[in-house]
Amino acid sequence: MRILGIDPGSRVTGFGIVDVAGQSRNYVASGCIRTGGGSLPERVRALLDGIAEVVATYHPDIAAVEQVFVNVNPASTLMLGQARGAVLAALVHAGLPIAEYTALQVKQAVVGNGHAGKDQVGQMVQRLLRLSGVPQADAADALAVALAHSQHAGGAAAQLAKLGLTVKRGRLA
Amino acid sequence: MRILGIDPGSRVTGFGIVDVAGQSRNYVASGCIRTGGGSLPERVRALLDGIAEVVATYHPDIAAVEQVFVNVNPASTLMLGQARGAVLAALVHAGLPIAEYTALQVKQAVVGNGHAGKDQVGQMVQRLLRLSGVPQADAADALAVALAHSQHAGGAAAQLAKLGLTVKRGRLA
Repeated sequence: MRILGIDPGSRVTGFGIVDVAGQSRNYVASGCIRTGGGSLPERVRALLDGIAEVVATYHPDIAAVEQVFVNVNPASTLMLGQARGAVLAALVHAGLPIAEYTALQVKQAVVGNGHAGKDQVGQMVQRLLRLSGVPQADAADALAVALAHSQHAGGAAAQLAKLGLTVKRGRLA
Repeated sequence: MRILGIDPGSRVTGFGIVDVAGQSRNYVASGCIRTGGGSLPERVRALLDGIAEVVATYHPDIAAVEQVFVNVNPASTLMLGQARGAVLAALVHAGLPIAEYTALQVKQAVVGNGHAGKDQVGQMVQRLLRLSGVPQADAADALAVALAHSQHAGGAAAQLAKLGLTVKRGRLA
């Protein structure tokens, strides 16, 4: 099973692709989609094009998307929500089943501590995927989301997702 | 010129289509896309399908989208942002130029008062489009956005939009 992990952001959206075979987790690719400083429709277009390209290149079986946390700044929260809505639209359009995980769940799954810092997440991603270095922060977060989903890979959630059903926070939504 | 006005919402997204010919404004259609109570990916899919159907049926030349205002509740703001991001993604995917207007601009354009109530907006939409009754509130708001854009229809913004450039708050973004 090939998992596309996504960490949506209003300026930078990280992506990371992990293959799961039994108990092994293998790094395939990771990177960032930068949406630039244009108008909102231009940034939405950059996200759609970027995700379409990633899906067309790597043919993931499922997408796992981090549930963004609510910012203290309402305008930032709105921007983040808009980016996340565009990301979900791109994934729905690509026909991918979508699983959602909170940052807490991702950190618990990858580090074993829901309140782990960014550095710890990056280091665990490096170790679990046997990388030569720590990936860039947004890519590391996206790989962590993919790894969090891989823990469900042998379970009921993954089986349901293969049927096109939506899994939310590890539960059937 | 045929304008598709959209008032995005996390549960109900209004749409309204208005034809502009010289000084005349003619009602074409309006309604709501209800996204139901399913999971977020399901609601995003309902929005994408609904907007694709409206575009395929009425072939608008441009979309005018209301800029949602930031809610006091951060979780609601995030939901609204996600809906708006999905709406913009659907419009970008349909290849439509997109203009954005704040609620203040829409009310100023349609009622002549940026702080007009929903009832006043509905009544002015009914009057301007010579309808037999006041449209449902979400549809009325969407028609109001289309009417607000129609005020720019003869101006520079509309000409730029025809070239595929983005107009934001009546200005080139």
